[in-house]
Amino acid sequence: MRLTQGFIPTIKETPNEAQIASHRLMLRAGLVRQTSAGIYAWLPLGLRVLRNIERIVREEQDASGAQELLMPTIQPAELWRESGRYDDYGAEMLRIQDRHERDMLYGPTNEEMITDLFRQSVRSYRELPKLLYHIQWKFRDEVRPRFGVMRGREFLMKDAYSFDLDHAGAVVSYRKMMLAYMRTFQRLGLKAIPMEADTGPIGGDLSHEFIILAPTGESQVFYDAAFEEIDYLARGAGGFRHDSAADLERFFREMTSHYAATDEKHDTVKWDAVAPERRREGRGIEVGHIFYFGDKYTKAMNATVTGPDGKQVHPEMGSYGIGVSRLVGAVIEASHDDAGIIWPESIAPFRAAILNLKPGDAACDAACAKLYDALGADALYDDREDRAGVKFNDADLMGHPWQLVVGPRGAASGKIELKRRASGERVELTPEDALTRISAGVDRRA
Amino acid sequence: MRLTQGFIPTIKETPNEAQIASHRLMLRAGLVRQTSAGIYAWLPLGLRVLRNIERIVREEQDASGAQELLMPTIQPAELWRESGRYDDYGAEMLRIQDRHERDMLYGPTNEEMITDLFRQSVRSYRELPKLLYHIQWKFRDEVRPRFGVMRGREFLMKDAYSFDLDHAGAVVSYRKMMLAYMRTFQRLGLKAIPMEADTGPIGGDLSHEFIILAPTGESQVFYDAAFEEIDYLARGAGGFRHDSAADLERFFREMTSHYAATDEKHDTVKWDAVAPERRREGRGIEVGHIFYFGDKYTKAMNATVTGPDGKQVHPEMGSYGIGVSRLVGAVIEASHDDAGIIWPESIAPFRAAILNLKPGDAACDAACAKLYDALGADALYDDREDRAGVKFNDADLMGHPWQLVVGPRGAASGKIELKRRASGERVELTPEDALTRISAGVDRRA
Repeated sequence: MRLTQGFIPTIKETPNEAQIASHRLMLRAGLVRQTSAGIYAWLPLGLRVLRNIERIVREEQDASGAQELLMPTIQPAELWRESGRYDDYGAEMLRIQDRHERDMLYGPTNEEMITDLFRQSVRSYRELPKLLYHIQWKFRDEVRPRFGVMRGREFLMKDAYSFDLDHAGAVVSYRKMMLAYMRTFQRLGLKAIPMEADTGPIGGDLSHEFIILAPTGESQVFYDAAFEEIDYLARGAGGFRHDSAADLERFFREMTSHYAATDEKHDTVKWDAVAPERRREGRGIEVGHIFYFGDKYTKAMNATVTGPDGKQVHPEMGSYGIGVSRLVGAVIEASHDDAGIIWPESIAPFRAAILNLKPGDAACDAACAKLYDALGADALYDDREDRAGVKFNDADLMGHPWQLVVGPRGAASGKIELKRRASGERVELTPEDALTRISAGVDRRA
Repeated sequence: MRLTQGFIPTIKETPNEAQIASHRLMLRAGLVRQTSAGIYAWLPLGLRVLRNIERIVREEQDASGAQELLMPTIQPAELWRESGRYDDYGAEMLRIQDRHERDMLYGPTNEEMITDLFRQSVRSYRELPKLLYHIQWKFRDEVRPRFGVMRGREFLMKDAYSFDLDHAGAVVSYRKMMLAYMRTFQRLGLKAIPMEADTGPIGGDLSHEFIILAPTGESQVFYDAAFEEIDYLARGAGGFRHDSAADLERFFREMTSHYAATDEKHDTVKWDAVAPERRREGRGIEVGHIFYFGDKYTKAMNATVTGPDGKQVHPEMGSYGIGVSRLVGAVIEASHDDAGIIWPESIAPFRAAILNLKPGDAACDAACAKLYDALGADALYDDREDRAGVKFNDADLMGHPWQLVVGPRGAASGKIELKRRASGERVELTPEDALTRISAGVDRRA
């Protein structure tokens, strides 16, 4: 994309309303604009990141055997009356009456609706397990929305739901999702720690939340170095396959046998038992949560399948959420510096920025055109008539992994400067060599 | 996908509530389920079609130079009070109060919000034209929702908005979008006719709606054969490029110089002037609508840019909508028979179904596994333990362009049957030859 033709309004000043780094940087780099309290429009640059994260989340859900569907945002109150949650949910639920005065709501989550879809169609234990997910906008009417997309009211969530015949099956589904989550976070360039969690308003008796490490995170976390050492994407002997119960068990043991806790639940006795050289501390942000809650909803809503013995059984369920829009903010919290965002390659809106330091100069224009041709949709071409300093600052602010800096002196002698945003490293080389280095840097492990 | 592992609940009986073919077939083939009046959940098969249509719509918007962003579903009432439409819009607008009793609404369209985003960021005529679009769920609280996704309450729409310095620029944007629409519909396998339209509640003085031909369409249409003869995707001399004002003018002349009208506006005098051999009649469904409305919103909401002479100018706007979820129904209305849906290759949920007529038979299983390996995500593998008749019926109902029928007799002698859904043509051939034919059939003109 040529910057002069795009819609990427960057801001030099630090916006007053933003208290945290990701919120400030998302506004300044032109990723989002607030349209109401806690509600955001995603501008082209932000949308590209959101879609890249969504794509990785989707690929890992699909790889785990989950089926994608799409439930609507507006739900009928009756379903929530069936489960008993309509009255329980409180003021965070956005309640609506339609023109016929029917009670509706903007879905904050979908346990009821998925259970309804399930009970309409699935009849026999032979059709189990079923692992269904969607990626859809949700609404929670936070009393004080803040921190930008990290705690917005309208937010994009991936929520998955598992249906199994019995507890043993449900545990396999739970572990599959846990593996999918750890793979997802690794692909996003994040260090994630799964932590045993309270089961909260959704209820149930097995639950983990996923904290990603970020220097500006909301809570202090204490964890064993093991979580940083495991390669969740590894193939072969050390890897974990979704379709192997033995692999899933070994994986789950790894996830649950090492110490991990936030300050709220920190247990100094257990912490002291961790070998000192393996103790890690940091700040963290919650980006996902998984629950096993048995037949809570299938019983309340009378969803049954015929079991192997011909009797009706209430399937065992779990639910599994990732905050997709929240992750955009969380990644920035985990990866930025004073100058701006530092995108991981896997989700960067553009892999590279081309900085034409002198538009109108024939050698500069020709070199940039060549680079832009080669990179196509992967490049943002800064072709503005503006000072070099403005371009350097904006490129750092937007956080493209690579910057291709084309100035008149270099261009005349067939050289450009390649800058790696993450390290700040700069080298002068030919455009061809620069393109080779950029392509080599892409994470192709998907 | 293996059918036994999917979530594709087909229904044998014709649902009572469905009055039109697409609604019946979408329920029967397991594409959607209604969750409230006029609100649908998209099951995996339906979602794949929806995403395929969305992808083609997006590619053609991008090709026209439009920038994608994403505005939220929930909008503040203030914006609509600024434009004066909050009171005008009537009962179709879903009005909401949040926990702080602020007036909100579920967006039925986005002229106000895009104008607000524009005025926050764009300062100079040098930044024009701007062509911005998003693909987002909308809500219109229809008093009697019906016809399935063709007239639902929560629906997916692509809406684009153009901002130009003057009328001449706005006309170029309008023509660009018109070309993008005709290309989009051709890629979807539809015959589309643009018709001059009233400007309706959005207002303005230039407007076209796009009717696609379907035997079960809602209105009678009369048109010149020219619209069926033009290849909007053609490259080279006869083609139309988005970036050539001359091409756009020639294109627009083609679109407006030939007769086209629905029965409401049919003009028998003009019709009689069309050469008899060029007269075409059919039924049609509206699937898109474009408007030019000048400075209606930029004036009401005081959005200005600095013009070339230093004075403030209210940019000229247009808006451009395609009903993405409606198109799923419209394509089915245009392409089905008594047995079920007949998907165009470009948007089929699966390119081919593999019908294993005897799961457990070694030769059948081996032949199917080989085909499934080769086709991967493009194939739906019917591996159910069920009668052949059930599989034939379901494959016809779901409408995959190709069926690969693997029976024990053929498999033993290295042959399978390939059926083309659209023509009913069946041939016996080797699996290799079948795969070659299937790949040759794909429309790669994107």
